[in-house]
Amino acid sequence: MNSGGGRGRRPGGPDTRGQILDSARRHFLADGYRSVTMRQIAADADVDLALLSYYFGSKKGLFSAAVTASANPAEVIARALDGDPAQLPQRVLRDLLILWDDPVTGAPLKTMLANLSQDAAFADLIRQMLERELIARLADRLSGVDARRRAAAFCTQIAGIVVTRYLLRLEPVASMPADELVSLFVPALRDSLQPTPRRPPTRGR
Amino acid sequence: MNSGGGRGRRPGGPDTRGQILDSARRHFLADGYRSVTMRQIAADADVDLALLSYYFGSKKGLFSAAVTASANPAEVIARALDGDPAQLPQRVLRDLLILWDDPVTGAPLKTMLANLSQDAAFADLIRQMLERELIARLADRLSGVDARRRAAAFCTQIAGIVVTRYLLRLEPVASMPADELVSLFVPALRDSLQPTPRRPPTRGR
Repeated sequence: MNSGGGRGRRPGGPDTRGQILDSARRHFLADGYRSVTMRQIAADADVDLALLSYYFGSKKGLFSAAVTASANPAEVIARALDGDPAQLPQRVLRDLLILWDDPVTGAPLKTMLANLSQDAAFADLIRQMLERELIARLADRLSGVDARRRAAAFCTQIAGIVVTRYLLRLEPVASMPADELVSLFVPALRDSLQPTPRRPPTRGR
Repeated sequence: MNSGGGRGRRPGGPDTRGQILDSARRHFLADGYRSVTMRQIAADADVDLALLSYYFGSKKGLFSAAVTASANPAEVIARALDGDPAQLPQRVLRDLLILWDDPVTGAPLKTMLANLSQDAAFADLIRQMLERELIARLADRLSGVDARRRAAAFCTQIAGIVVTRYLLRLEPVASMPADELVSLFVPALRDSLQPTPRRPPTRGR
């Protein structure tokens, strides 16, 4: 793919970054996050190892870039958060399901999910991303004193849907069409965004 | 602990099963599911390897038994499903949080969660357990044609709480006291158990 032609480690060129990302995505998908080395990716992309650090800083940075090269969940969420607040739950859920259900954009996300528990530093990276890109951004759009708590409740439900459908593959959630899943979960998602107390006390009912 | 005294591989006795479970729990907690061998556990428990198969059938069986030796989530769920249906969501969530928050009963469950994605056969075991012990039992207690779907929605939310609090450790869910977590999630959990359509259409609101 590189216009330079010939063999040997290339010093970097217009396609080098994309080539590294392709190799990285292929390796991470095949072998998971932990067992892949920067050296393997560099060799496979036919570039100098130092270029990986130059472009992506670290293995974590490279993984993030590889995962989000085809679709960035943070951008999808940011887009879904804009627009009519009344339709926010279905918009967020529908857009995330499109991203995860698609073979191309979903595969690296599923790999990321499956590798979450293998590396504490990696889990930290995902945690920070979720707290910053999803919980904090959503809390900004909610009013009331417990905005952050409600945003966290919303994200917890989204996490449940993702884990149940793509990691545990529990039925009937795993094979349900996306639009049915949206209908099933939107009432509870909308409920979690309401300020407390959300309804009359039910004690003794 | 064994009344037989002396060293050497014991052929089995009144405490042998418990001794194997203690060793298994210790090894699984320290090293995770996949990297522990039956041979290591047998050596550590000072019993013949064949006894492990005799008592527990397989490594998966031994792991299940070791995890549930101090507290069995399926039994906790079965108890919580009984009683006043109006209080079912808070009962299930509160009892599960007690189980997971407790250092003794929670540690093996967290190990199980962290190892979920490492072994497809192991994930199958957990999936079957959840489908059988939680979704099917809960669906039996709900009326209406979509009982199983609503039970799955409920379990998906429970899965979200467990993953967010104990695997991702997303704040503020990770460090919230259990009773606050129950208040935060019970409205949405209760909502997920209502037959659809659950509320007037909100389109255009």
